Amino acid sequence: MALIVQKYGGSSVANAERIKNVAKRIGAVHDRGDQVVVVVSAMGDTTDDLIKLARQISRNPDEREMDMLLCTGEIVSCTLLAMALQDMGYDAISLSGAQAGIRTDSAYSQARITGIVPKRIHEELKDGKIVIVAGFQGITKEMDMTTLGRGGSDTTAVALAASLKATVCERYTDTDGVYTADPRIVPNAKRLPEISFEEMLELATYGSKVIHPRAVELGELYNIPVLVASSFNNNPGTLIHGGPLAMEIRNKVRSIAQDTDVAKITIVGVPDKPGTAASIFEPLAKSGISIDTIVQNTSINNITDMTFTIARTQLKKAMEIITPIAKSFGAKDVINDPKMGKISIIGTGIQNTPGYAARMFRALSNRDINIQLISTSEIRITCIIEESKVAEAVQALHSAFELEKPD
Amino acid sequence: MALIVQKYGGSSVANAERIKNVAKRIGAVHDRGDQVVVVVSAMGDTTDDLIKLARQISRNPDEREMDMLLCTGEIVSCTLLAMALQDMGYDAISLSGAQAGIRTDSAYSQARITGIVPKRIHEELKDGKIVIVAGFQGITKEMDMTTLGRGGSDTTAVALAASLKATVCERYTDTDGVYTADPRIVPNAKRLPEISFEEMLELATYGSKVIHPRAVELGELYNIPVLVASSFNNNPGTLIHGGPLAMEIRNKVRSIAQDTDVAKITIVGVPDKPGTAASIFEPLAKSGISIDTIVQNTSINNITDMTFTIARTQLKKAMEIITPIAKSFGAKDVINDPKMGKISIIGTGIQNTPGYAARMFRALSNRDINIQLISTSEIRITCIIEESKVAEAVQALHSAFELEKPD
Repeated sequence: MALIVQKYGGSSVANAERIKNVAKRIGAVHDRGDQVVVVVSAMGDTTDDLIKLARQISRNPDEREMDMLLCTGEIVSCTLLAMALQDMGYDAISLSGAQAGIRTDSAYSQARITGIVPKRIHEELKDGKIVIVAGFQGITKEMDMTTLGRGGSDTTAVALAASLKATVCERYTDTDGVYTADPRIVPNAKRLPEISFEEMLELATYGSKVIHPRAVELGELYNIPVLVASSFNNNPGTLIHGGPLAMEIRNKVRSIAQDTDVAKITIVGVPDKPGTAASIFEPLAKSGISIDTIVQNTSINNITDMTFTIARTQLKKAMEIITPIAKSFGAKDVINDPKMGKISIIGTGIQNTPGYAARMFRALSNRDINIQLISTSEIRITCIIEESKVAEAVQALHSAFELEKPD
Repeated sequence: MALIVQKYGGSSVANAERIKNVAKRIGAVHDRGDQVVVVVSAMGDTTDDLIKLARQISRNPDEREMDMLLCTGEIVSCTLLAMALQDMGYDAISLSGAQAGIRTDSAYSQARITGIVPKRIHEELKDGKIVIVAGFQGITKEMDMTTLGRGGSDTTAVALAASLKATVCERYTDTDGVYTADPRIVPNAKRLPEISFEEMLELATYGSKVIHPRAVELGELYNIPVLVASSFNNNPGTLIHGGPLAMEIRNKVRSIAQDTDVAKITIVGVPDKPGTAASIFEPLAKSGISIDTIVQNTSINNITDMTFTIARTQLKKAMEIITPIAKSFGAKDVINDPKMGKISIIGTGIQNTPGYAARMFRALSNRDINIQLISTSEIRITCIIEESKVAEAVQALHSAFELEKPD
């Protein structure tokens, strides 16, 4: 008897019919004799609707109140899913984050799980029940409700799987798994049957929306295999795991990620002396602005240019912070371009194998796509290009690395 | 510095604008230096919408799941109200039933409050905060969420007022207070500035929808005055209290209640022997059917007829239970009339003052309204009549007892 943690996203439980469909899938797992703990997101657009409602009340709603408000979305979907299972004759129970023992710090809207006390879950499993847990939420020592921020339900599922020592965490959404590229851009993209945690982490961080990087990190940390599959069909999906990958898929580009939510800021004429970078990036970090790629040119006469990218929505705020600081240390100018995109090739070992970078740059230049910034990791090469060229670039790279061909 | 508990009904917080309006009223109380604890119902039709959603999933949803689902409605409204107050510059915090320490038994869908642990509320009040509590809900020892059933938010408010030793419990809805009769039926009905707990309890039990009888009972038990007023205007409302009423309003009909949700069942030819009544009413009670007026005729040759009234929605179920039982002890027939109504005159001391019953019966007979059953208490006389005659009967009684005249 295995213990399976399943997670269903908002689109999988968007209405009564879909909830019943999900209940059937869960029932089938129980029927084959496995224990099941299910984590659910809020139904469809519930979270967005609640946020809209709050904005009608206050432009800047308090985060504690906002978290308590948003927690109701997952409580609704998990009670409905429990009812659907009961209606089919299964013994099921819904648990809020608090009831499931998901303890967090009190960083409202982006709380971190500090521990899980799965006593109640174990009791209910022992009673033969299917346990449905509200995702995305937890509770502080003071009994205040928190939300885990973006990717929160994925994080709940993987953390629960780790805490319960589950065999696997199965994450179901409306996508079939991880592809060699986004199938909406590259119609002949192939589904990958498996991928390593490291590769998936880079893919997720560099634009793939299939699973949130936090959940992947957690899976890696506790070595919980994560299956990413669709709740709308029975395709096998993609298994993200830490075991050895088959030889033939090493040293090869596995997938291409793209991100079109990118803005670029360049500080022109920065005096190249110690502390400059810190004085720029510390205030940004304090304002919650995540810096992505940072590039600093070779310094000429102790003057350099510093360029970095951020999410487009944070550009205005970042410019307001950066401009006076740049002025204060005598930079010439601060310029920005809000319409940037990011494309990345990812594959274990590609950094150690000569020729990948060159082939990437050549494929882009053949299409007259200008590379503005380059950043690399051990298993990834990223180019920052104009947003309007992103789809074309993904297609060019998919073809250049022959990802449509069988392994 | 007084401590005021206010309660706002669903229509008072039905949308963002009304929530802001309620926040202004609460802010005004805080501004004058009083401490405020506010209990809210779910917004407008939220509870009905959640019930509909559950019925799409299951015809007979589990009560534990249903309670957890419904609890979200009040959590939403209380967080939004806290946000509205914060947006106006007040320090406010929302608390779920669990956080507010509302402990209940585990009789899902109709839980009773077993105790209130107001530690958190006291702490927040001490910090100068306005505390907003989700009504209608509590938590069991096992940390399961419960709802208090009909009139639940009123009950929360009065129980909190008792626990916190509040000066008064102010209950705001879309009605102005308690009237001499329903103003929709009797346009010149007068608002009563005050009414006793006993009178209000009879009024609420016999059809007035102004406040739930459970809340009145609780107010009486802990001697918490309850003000019933409108959140849409500043009219003074009606104070329900246990102190002595002004002399001139004793021994007088105070108000007329009507109820059109009544069905009548008659068991014809019941052998008049010990245990018969119990064998009829015990199975009904077990099925959750509340019996209202019961009348048994004088027995002739040890055969009697037994008539009682119930809520119309429970008629079918009641007939299914009663028919085989009646047959088993040899009753002749079980007949029913689903279209009955109930009118009551209520006033402290009217039973001790001759002439009220006669005047009531005369007023009805003058309009050719046939009285089918009569029941009385110390402060009430009730007649069961045809449903179609209820409005006319209320008007006739209002006029016969000159309730439109000043006291």
